[in-house]
Amino acid sequence: MTSVPSRDDTAAAPGSTERTRVRRIPQKAVTDVAALHAILDAALVAHVGIVVDGQPFVVPVAFARRGDEVLIHGSRASRLFRCLAAGGPACLTVTLLDGLVLARSAFESSMNYRSVMVLGTARLLDDAEATEALRAISDHLLPGRWADIRPPSAKELAATMTLSIDLAESSVKIGSGDPDDDPADLAYADRMRIWAGRVPIIETFAEPMADPLTPADVAVPDYVRQWSRT
Amino acid sequence: MTSVPSRDDTAAAPGSTERTRVRRIPQKAVTDVAALHAILDAALVAHVGIVVDGQPFVVPVAFARRGDEVLIHGSRASRLFRCLAAGGPACLTVTLLDGLVLARSAFESSMNYRSVMVLGTARLLDDAEATEALRAISDHLLPGRWADIRPPSAKELAATMTLSIDLAESSVKIGSGDPDDDPADLAYADRMRIWAGRVPIIETFAEPMADPLTPADVAVPDYVRQWSRT
Repeated sequence: MTSVPSRDDTAAAPGSTERTRVRRIPQKAVTDVAALHAILDAALVAHVGIVVDGQPFVVPVAFARRGDEVLIHGSRASRLFRCLAAGGPACLTVTLLDGLVLARSAFESSMNYRSVMVLGTARLLDDAEATEALRAISDHLLPGRWADIRPPSAKELAATMTLSIDLAESSVKIGSGDPDDDPADLAYADRMRIWAGRVPIIETFAEPMADPLTPADVAVPDYVRQWSRT
Repeated sequence: MTSVPSRDDTAAAPGSTERTRVRRIPQKAVTDVAALHAILDAALVAHVGIVVDGQPFVVPVAFARRGDEVLIHGSRASRLFRCLAAGGPACLTVTLLDGLVLARSAFESSMNYRSVMVLGTARLLDDAEATEALRAISDHLLPGRWADIRPPSAKELAATMTLSIDLAESSVKIGSGDPDDDPADLAYADRMRIWAGRVPIIETFAEPMADPLTPADVAVPDYVRQWSRT
């Protein structure tokens, strides 16, 4: 494995606790705030877990990192967002899938990924904070877009819950590089004739598609043209 | 929105219950088993939620659908997998992000996606079942690979928990098509000069990269060349 700490490194991310310490495969734990921020900043979707009557629910949400917090929003009518806003324990996980790892055994076959797990409780933002947070989410997902579009109305803000989750209790896990085959497999000449390595996964934006209401003479904005997933 | 049921369609997926009925934006709920299976079959990663001492944890896992169940595996030393295997309530969510949706207001700006949420408890598979299930996971993620590589040893099986979660209680949510702007916004001539539409997101495999131990005369297998994310 390249670009991960050695197998002896069992530390977790800054602010990590006994709950977020990466217990399994500690060589995949990364300790650095820059890595934490970079993963959050590269992702478009997070999966938020919340418990309702003992049952976990995991829902995909748009989000943005701002400093040492993560911002999310949802409908005020959403049961899950009401639970989050009420301070129920939450987990926000972000995963970027980087590729398939083809080892010489089934056991060592895996995927390369970068993942962040944040434990905490959400704080409900007031309307003034919410507008700024919604702008931050827009700036993260659709950079440059906010200046062009109508901002949220009072009615829309009233229908929206905007929440902040602190990054204080978080962990980072990264799997990267070539397969980490069992040394025993490498001793078999026939097994060493198996092609092994990795198949990277790449996410890209395709050509923007105007909706039917956009006039033919209105071009795709330059800020949209500049968006890139890499 | 195209290719989603009308706003009057509040039904959920087959086998849905009060817990999985899509409460928010019911027009995004899809009722069809084929859609459920197609989303699971197109995804490489799921996010599994489990509750430990009241705290939800959400972790990314490789998985495969087989018939009406989802198969996952993890280390027997993993606290989360032990909780899953012990029959703790679980939620498995799969999300495919299809694109950004650029509306004329911040409120209607969104993302296109296909998502499945499965509620249930996991069933721990015995070693004979586990080998078949691990093969199904390999066949899903790395089709054709199983025949080339060393299957799990008894020791590796003993270190692995392989679990099945039934799809009986599941829901599907799909957002697709063009932005769904507030009709009020469409009445403003200046707002109708805003470019609106969507930016599709595409996931692809890049060129396979052999590891340094693969002999130079061993070519990338044909089954790997055939892999595609679309």
